Amino acid sequence: MSKRAYNFNAGPAALPLEVLERAQEELVEYQGIGMSVMEISHRSAEYEQLNAETQELLADLLNIPAGYKTLFLQGGASTQFAMIPLNFLTSEKVANYVITGSWGKKALKESKLIGETRVVAQPEKFSHVPDLSELQLDNSSAYLHITSNETIEGIQFQQFPNIGDIPLIADMSSDILCKPIDVSKFGLIYAGAQKNLGPSGVTLVIVKEDLLENTPDHIPSMLRYDTHIKANSLYNTPPVYSVYMVNLVLKWLKEKGGLDQVEKFNQEKTKLIYDVIDESQGFYVGTVEKQDRSIMNIPFRLKDEALEKEFLKQTQENGFVGLKGHRSVGGMRASTYNAVPYESCKALSEFMIDFQKRNG
Amino acid sequence: MSKRAYNFNAGPAALPLEVLERAQEELVEYQGIGMSVMEISHRSAEYEQLNAETQELLADLLNIPAGYKTLFLQGGASTQFAMIPLNFLTSEKVANYVITGSWGKKALKESKLIGETRVVAQPEKFSHVPDLSELQLDNSSAYLHITSNETIEGIQFQQFPNIGDIPLIADMSSDILCKPIDVSKFGLIYAGAQKNLGPSGVTLVIVKEDLLENTPDHIPSMLRYDTHIKANSLYNTPPVYSVYMVNLVLKWLKEKGGLDQVEKFNQEKTKLIYDVIDESQGFYVGTVEKQDRSIMNIPFRLKDEALEKEFLKQTQENGFVGLKGHRSVGGMRASTYNAVPYESCKALSEFMIDFQKRNG
Repeated sequence: MSKRAYNFNAGPAALPLEVLERAQEELVEYQGIGMSVMEISHRSAEYEQLNAETQELLADLLNIPAGYKTLFLQGGASTQFAMIPLNFLTSEKVANYVITGSWGKKALKESKLIGETRVVAQPEKFSHVPDLSELQLDNSSAYLHITSNETIEGIQFQQFPNIGDIPLIADMSSDILCKPIDVSKFGLIYAGAQKNLGPSGVTLVIVKEDLLENTPDHIPSMLRYDTHIKANSLYNTPPVYSVYMVNLVLKWLKEKGGLDQVEKFNQEKTKLIYDVIDESQGFYVGTVEKQDRSIMNIPFRLKDEALEKEFLKQTQENGFVGLKGHRSVGGMRASTYNAVPYESCKALSEFMIDFQKRNG
Repeated sequence: MSKRAYNFNAGPAALPLEVLERAQEELVEYQGIGMSVMEISHRSAEYEQLNAETQELLADLLNIPAGYKTLFLQGGASTQFAMIPLNFLTSEKVANYVITGSWGKKALKESKLIGETRVVAQPEKFSHVPDLSELQLDNSSAYLHITSNETIEGIQFQQFPNIGDIPLIADMSSDILCKPIDVSKFGLIYAGAQKNLGPSGVTLVIVKEDLLENTPDHIPSMLRYDTHIKANSLYNTPPVYSVYMVNLVLKWLKEKGGLDQVEKFNQEKTKLIYDVIDESQGFYVGTVEKQDRSIMNIPFRLKDEALEKEFLKQTQENGFVGLKGHRSVGGMRASTYNAVPYESCKALSEFMIDFQKRNG
């Protein structure tokens, strides 16, 4: 086997080597049943066990309180952008969005297609989370939507707003399970799997059941949360293999000691890179104010595009993958999801120091 | 490794052993790049290659003419049930459905939520495909929807209706690639992958591009075919691993000699089972008229439920999986998709003969 890449992909992204090795071992033959997990029926005892166990692992890791339901859907966060207003934005209501980056804007666009939608906070530049401590939402509010971590801009909520009885809905695609959160503050949490949960192809939804009593009748069955709640995510054929991989990743997180440990580990490894930026005397420029920096996505710039191009070229030659910033913002970005090892961040920080010596 | 099960699951279903072994071999390390295929970016050269090659393999196997676009989506056929009327059933139009079983009824239900919808043919009992040779559709027709193979009832279209300029739309989830078809007769073909294409988690859509000029503005981005056409199935993160598995299955089909050979092979192996039914003098009862029998799903009954229960118990004890009929119709069903080997069908036919000897 060749050396493992230093994988900083923004998603699909690095998976734990131990998880991949376990998946490889049992790919052809699952639990001695003469079949691959890809060949079992979603109505089989084996899949029911997998479905239930994966929900329990999430409940355990995130300390999900009673009254919430965990769903495994398809279509990614992009489908949730539409499902949320379709289910919650009934005709007399208004949807509220806090925009802190590119994904929030995409969510907003879909809500506008469905019903009355307003932006309640958006900083002029995507460099920080706006102060939401004074935010007051009236009773016409269907919900408040936030993006807990903006993958492209590298902005992460450090605390969540208190908005009384209005449901708080969060796109946590790129920071779910990176640290403990208080699920009881949320009406709905959703996350595409391909950053912190597993491979692409499954979307996690954690939803407070009692919010779903007013879904309009004309909404297609597959776009109704109550369809999937009633069927325990088995209304139609689920993405069995993706759920299986999520199951393995969650077990790996538990073995790591749970989310307190995972957060500590993420802070340690991202500190390696943020320290190089902060100590570079302006050679590397972070784009986010320190207090709202993400421990999942670290965007940074160099003084000009030519030098950035050279940086990316040399990192590629040295076994680093995925460091190019999103095409909409340019520059560099290191995505440091749970499965990205300390070793990769250490190697990147050392490369950055060396690159500065040679080009500073 | 334990013995491979005789896997007759209705979907997710058997995959070719060679494909599983290949997937296992390269699960941790894909093409020497130091990553799993699950860890590559969907914007990477590796995935672009996989996306393009999988489209080409389909074009080649199905002889797809110019003017059609091949998409890899999420959400299964159940999401297509809604997407089709959302995209095609504009306000002055009427959607037409031929109902030959349970899946057609599900598709119909979703269309009724969206717009004016009518059933143009439905046999009293789901035992045959109605005669559509005289079918006339007026110009208000948005499309005609058929289910080319009803997975639960085991009814398969042997030929497709000629309806002039009205788009013919077919759910081919359970018989895509089981035999050659004339794609040019269709406006849109769709299929969940988990029967003949690969594992669950990806949905194939083959659509005539010029039909998509009138999608209403308010349809959410993810539910618009034109979104996915413009982005070459990369509007959002695709189910990378599922597409990879489909790619391997398609290569396996090519190695088998293409769809003419595959059809012959399917006929030979299903004949083993249908012959036992036909020669059993009423011990085994087929539920479909001979001319419309499916070469993918073979439903059959015994004289009473007690004997059926005994049959299922004994097959389970003898290494057979998935022979229980769908809970909505009862009885038995052998799903004999492309990847189900001759050996499995031979074993089942022998078991059936033996079971009759012992219980006839």
